[in-house]
Amino acid sequence: MIGGGEGAYIGGIHRFAARLDNNYELVAGAFDVDAERGHAFAAKNYIQRDRSYGDYKAMVEAEKSRPDRVDVVAICTPNHTHYPIAKAFLDAGIHVICEKPMTTTIEDAIALHDLAQSTGLFLGVTYTYSGYPMIHEARAMVQRGDLGTIRVVQVEYPLEWMATGIELQGNQQAAWRTDPKKNGRGGSIGDIGTHAYHLAGFVTGLKADAIAADLATFVEGRALDDNAHVMIRYQGGARGLLWSSQVAIGQSNGLRLRVFGEKGSLAWHQENPNELHFTPLFGAPTVIKRGRDDLSEATRIRTRTPPGHPEGYIEAFTNLYSSFAAVIRAKASGGNQSSFAEGVPTSYDGLKGVAFVDAVVDSHEAHNGGWQTPRFV
Amino acid sequence: MIGGGEGAYIGGIHRFAARLDNNYELVAGAFDVDAERGHAFAAKNYIQRDRSYGDYKAMVEAEKSRPDRVDVVAICTPNHTHYPIAKAFLDAGIHVICEKPMTTTIEDAIALHDLAQSTGLFLGVTYTYSGYPMIHEARAMVQRGDLGTIRVVQVEYPLEWMATGIELQGNQQAAWRTDPKKNGRGGSIGDIGTHAYHLAGFVTGLKADAIAADLATFVEGRALDDNAHVMIRYQGGARGLLWSSQVAIGQSNGLRLRVFGEKGSLAWHQENPNELHFTPLFGAPTVIKRGRDDLSEATRIRTRTPPGHPEGYIEAFTNLYSSFAAVIRAKASGGNQSSFAEGVPTSYDGLKGVAFVDAVVDSHEAHNGGWQTPRFV
Amino acid sequence: MIGGGEGAYIGGIHRFAARLDNNYELVAGAFDVDAERGHAFAAKNYIQRDRSYGDYKAMVEAEKSRPDRVDVVAICTPNHTHYPIAKAFLDAGIHVICEKPMTTTIEDAIALHDLAQSTGLFLGVTYTYSGYPMIHEARAMVQRGDLGTIRVVQVEYPLEWMATGIELQGNQQAAWRTDPKKNGRGGSIGDIGTHAYHLAGFVTGLKADAIAADLATFVEGRALDDNAHVMIRYQGGARGLLWSSQVAIGQSNGLRLRVFGEKGSLAWHQENPNELHFTPLFGAPTVIKRGRDDLSEATRIRTRTPPGHPEGYIEAFTNLYSSFAAVIRAKASGGNQSSFAEGVPTSYDGLKGVAFVDAVVDSHEAHNGGWQTPRFV
Amino acid sequence: MIGGGEGAYIGGIHRFAARLDNNYELVAGAFDVDAERGHAFAAKNYIQRDRSYGDYKAMVEAEKSRPDRVDVVAICTPNHTHYPIAKAFLDAGIHVICEKPMTTTIEDAIALHDLAQSTGLFLGVTYTYSGYPMIHEARAMVQRGDLGTIRVVQVEYPLEWMATGIELQGNQQAAWRTDPKKNGRGGSIGDIGTHAYHLAGFVTGLKADAIAADLATFVEGRALDDNAHVMIRYQGGARGLLWSSQVAIGQSNGLRLRVFGEKGSLAWHQENPNELHFTPLFGAPTVIKRGRDDLSEATRIRTRTPPGHPEGYIEAFTNLYSSFAAVIRAKASGGNQSSFAEGVPTSYDGLKGVAFVDAVVDSHEAHNGGWQTPRFV
Repeated sequence: MIGGGEGAYIGGIHRFAARLDNNYELVAGAFDVDAERGHAFAAKNYIQRDRSYGDYKAMVEAEKSRPDRVDVVAICTPNHTHYPIAKAFLDAGIHVICEKPMTTTIEDAIALHDLAQSTGLFLGVTYTYSGYPMIHEARAMVQRGDLGTIRVVQVEYPLEWMATGIELQGNQQAAWRTDPKKNGRGGSIGDIGTHAYHLAGFVTGLKADAIAADLATFVEGRALDDNAHVMIRYQGGARGLLWSSQVAIGQSNGLRLRVFGEKGSLAWHQENPNELHFTPLFGAPTVIKRGRDDLSEATRIRTRTPPGHPEGYIEAFTNLYSSFAAVIRAKASGGNQSSFAEGVPTSYDGLKGVAFVDAVVDSHEAHNGGWQTPRFV
Repeated sequence: MIGGGEGAYIGGIHRFAARLDNNYELVAGAFDVDAERGHAFAAKNYIQRDRSYGDYKAMVEAEKSRPDRVDVVAICTPNHTHYPIAKAFLDAGIHVICEKPMTTTIEDAIALHDLAQSTGLFLGVTYTYSGYPMIHEARAMVQRGDLGTIRVVQVEYPLEWMATGIELQGNQQAAWRTDPKKNGRGGSIGDIGTHAYHLAGFVTGLKADAIAADLATFVEGRALDDNAHVMIRYQGGARGLLWSSQVAIGQSNGLRLRVFGEKGSLAWHQENPNELHFTPLFGAPTVIKRGRDDLSEATRIRTRTPPGHPEGYIEAFTNLYSSFAAVIRAKASGGNQSSFAEGVPTSYDGLKGVAFVDAVVDSHEAHNGGWQTPRFV
Repeated sequence: MIGGGEGAYIGGIHRFAARLDNNYELVAGAFDVDAERGHAFAAKNYIQRDRSYGDYKAMVEAEKSRPDRVDVVAICTPNHTHYPIAKAFLDAGIHVICEKPMTTTIEDAIALHDLAQSTGLFLGVTYTYSGYPMIHEARAMVQRGDLGTIRVVQVEYPLEWMATGIELQGNQQAAWRTDPKKNGRGGSIGDIGTHAYHLAGFVTGLKADAIAADLATFVEGRALDDNAHVMIRYQGGARGLLWSSQVAIGQSNGLRLRVFGEKGSLAWHQENPNELHFTPLFGAPTVIKRGRDDLSEATRIRTRTPPGHPEGYIEAFTNLYSSFAAVIRAKASGGNQSSFAEGVPTSYDGLKGVAFVDAVVDSHEAHNGGWQTPRFV
Repeated sequence: MIGGGEGAYIGGIHRFAARLDNNYELVAGAFDVDAERGHAFAAKNYIQRDRSYGDYKAMVEAEKSRPDRVDVVAICTPNHTHYPIAKAFLDAGIHVICEKPMTTTIEDAIALHDLAQSTGLFLGVTYTYSGYPMIHEARAMVQRGDLGTIRVVQVEYPLEWMATGIELQGNQQAAWRTDPKKNGRGGSIGDIGTHAYHLAGFVTGLKADAIAADLATFVEGRALDDNAHVMIRYQGGARGLLWSSQVAIGQSNGLRLRVFGEKGSLAWHQENPNELHFTPLFGAPTVIKRGRDDLSEATRIRTRTPPGHPEGYIEAFTNLYSSFAAVIRAKASGGNQSSFAEGVPTSYDGLKGVAFVDAVVDSHEAHNGGWQTPRFV
């Protein structure tokens, strides 16, 4: 693991996710820009001292020649460091799990994707929310035609935590997210809008044809957007509306997806993720509960508890990690991937996410909200 | 009353609204295009035979010379007839309550508004949802600064009922709503999008600076949009997103408004209208219930029952009617309007609604989604 | 109308209910114990001066000999006055609509019921909540077997408003409700528990076989129970649990009914009355919305607006009033009752309610919670 | 671990809970009554072959003399085996984590509790739901007086899964739960009623003074209750109502607790466990979200993710396991317990649970619903 040491947030989630299904063992890492603090953190996590590294370069160098070298590395650092770290590990023949967005520029994203392709290594991107079982159920329902042709997609991802200028008050998480050099061109649209965009595509299978966007920055002195409105035209005629916001008071982690087809509609809310709401045309709304025996295989294999025993974010993240493990094992064994690997977010999904941010910012800046086609969809 | 006879929907609601608060007595009308059916309907509603008219022209003619002539007429007919009927009654010196949209063209809307201004008569437009007590509470909270400067407005009005081509299957309500000559240029955006737009403006006090829109028609053979996505830039910098849809399966009457300010946020849903959800910055979400003694005066005077005893759509419509009565009484007496008249939707609101539809359709058609400024805001 | 003048609560609701469906005209009353205040109130409500009476005795005396005498009187006074007033009007040949509980003693209840039977007059009791359309839908579903044999009934009616000793602080509504002489033997159980008990029986058709109760008084100095727990054994083996409380902070008017059968379950909550929640055995929960065309006739005739346009407490009360009108019209015409009269709460329902309170208080006081059979079920 | 092998349910949850916080390593077990199947299961779980045992006796025998013997054993077998297994491990000096109910008879429960006391070993009982962070918040709020004196406790635990005679159709989980010899005297009241009873006591700190109960068996041929209604009088005057059911169609795992005090009320629902609903006297209902920085320490140390990132059942179980680890480490080191050990369910809680079931069944059987005082509270 790179990053994710003391005081970090997402690194701890990665470790829970690695542990819960018993598919990973954490044996090495460079956890902190402060090497001593990193070593202390490693010791607390039962890492042997000689595999606690001062930085990622030292880790690549040492691990690549070990017979028991790590199979895969998780990159939990700010966005602008994803590219060099991922490149270094891929160059060393080590699989990579990378936080989203995959890179801060489209050029870097293309390069990483090409590198993953040419080396045959796995580069997984943590589009976390696609790990939720009921998101897989939604996807299965769309695929088997329960909704008919999709007409309208409404997706939103509002947050409250940056409603004031906390980046000026010492919040490190907010500080790099509002720095274009570290975060990339998109503020809210890059940080969370990409999650929403990926989720909508993951469930519906739709590809964007064109987008038109309106970005805003409400907190004074902030260099990137903290609110984004995006209209989407999908190939085939469906229409979408995407909202991301970092200033939406009252919204803790309000990712919400609604899909309307010609035969039915679906709704899902991340804060109550065990339920999927389905309404057939002119019928009664029904609640589909995670854990039922009659759900799709993709849902059932991502389920640990019966209906009524809630699972949450850590289990979703674990599902993603278990998908990554399924791909890596298949590559190692030369065998077929298990069904767990289906839909796993890869470097191409990472590339699509970066292309989406580019298209949004281009639409807003260069085209005054005019329609813009993402380079990769 | 013009229209609203046997089999009509909204006419019955107007009658409930007129009756509940005992502010009106229904004494005359031309209820049906089929005069005999209209007379039968009138008889069932305790209307004297000589005041049941064959059409609106006969009614204007007869009523204007009666000493006990009607004070006000309610127009409950398809959109394209609003203009001639309203004009005829205003010309005869009779106040008018008109269904929305006020007219099908901006020219007619301007003319009617000017006529109301020049005659000094009242022309109220039934933006029904502004009659809900908790909408008045939301407005009062914005006005007294509980939310601080408004940043983001999310408003949506999705419906299911036209998800198939019911206009081809004999549904009269749907038939005229999908006929550009009878309905005007906007389909879903004219029929329900205007409600959403008015509500957002009513609560926040914001005026649109520019809008960019994407319209779609999903049901084959339909001549008007049945889904509309609109991005709004308000004067002063707030941003809005508006969605109207007539093909949103599972949505009965899903008008929903969310307002995010720099100090707090509000959420309200028409299907559960007795609650207003407020969250202060970084605080806990709270539920404000209709009927409490500590709400604003505007809310309290629109309230009939204590908390926990739900009021609904008919009561909201009644509040609108009672507001109209307050204005008309003040005009009749030459006295001041009661506080019930504050915020009542007038011909200018009707005009703004028509201008909004024009801007949306222009943005979509002529400007390919580009920003467009409504002529009246 | 007797009582219900200035400052009263339930009288106003009765008037809304009488007016909304246009089935009644309010022409006479004795609205206030203070005759002058009563006359002023009458004038504001368009009552002719000679039919505004000083008290109920004067009204009976004058009305009974008028050719245009009232058809029916509504009694909106404290409980202990129901008996003499109802008796006087029935003796005079006038139908009666009476607030619940019908009387404060079982003897009075028996006498009134007998009087209604012997005179052939109608004595309706306002078990308001049985006026809700979705309660009729629930009843229809039970009757047609959608739930199979009923096993368990959970009903509760918690309120907050008497959580402190407001009767000592000048609240008149609370004062008579906590005075055994005016209210009867049961505090919360009489005031609201009887509503819950009626509703459970109305929906399920079950009759109590025995009850065991535990009453408590939490507010110091209060003479009657303000919280009641009741276990019910129904004839045929079903079991019930009933909770009423006047000290349940956070509960505005929390009447809630859940019915579990061998084939399905139902849930309904008064504060969101337009929805009925149904789950078939091992199936997905579904939401049944008021206003749909496919609901039972009993539901449809009590419905004014389509799905998504909420109706509430006033409409439920109106439905009750319209049921009363249906019975009274049938008696007047000698014809058959319309389907609107089915299930209307009569004097026998009033009697059952008083017998229930007796059984609860007896179980608690004389039998230390032991099983007790109500005298009328 | 004893039990919990292939096809078992709760054993898997125990393993997740042991793993997530990295406090345990699973090194030995007797997983199955079929020894070969047990060994196969052990191998899949990375257990060395010589520590996969044929039964618990073999495990006690072998482990007690190993230098690296297990610190603690988890018992995940049917109820009637808890006693002999727990006794054997305690006799061998090994700490025990035991599923609830601790034993099937009060005598066994007393004996086990005494043994734990006399040996100084830890015997933890998995009252799972007390592991939820917001349950700790509720407890902290009661303790610091936010609710004032508690008046009323409403707790319910309805399930659907045994609504038909699945025990006759090969469901092993249901088979032993409906066999008095394996399950103990209480059916639903023993299996889930004890959870509800513990939770109510855990949050409020109240001790039962007397209980009165009505048990029912709805599924034909079933030997134990599948529905229980219980009225509770707590010491000090508070009143409680407890409902447990295994035949409640539509209820997946519907544990729900509401507590009403003289200053405020709380509500919590296991299926949406990240929220706690609090209403102050005559105030607005508020939602307290797990993950906030301003919650009590007991809540914060049981929290892994920020607000809006849901945690669930596995995390609650993990919290319990981490509490157990805190106690065991303190015993091992002779040091003080960390704050994580506060409130941990011990053998005395197990004993109270068994005493509660006894009192309920006694009230129902011997006393016809009369008040009965549990032997241990």
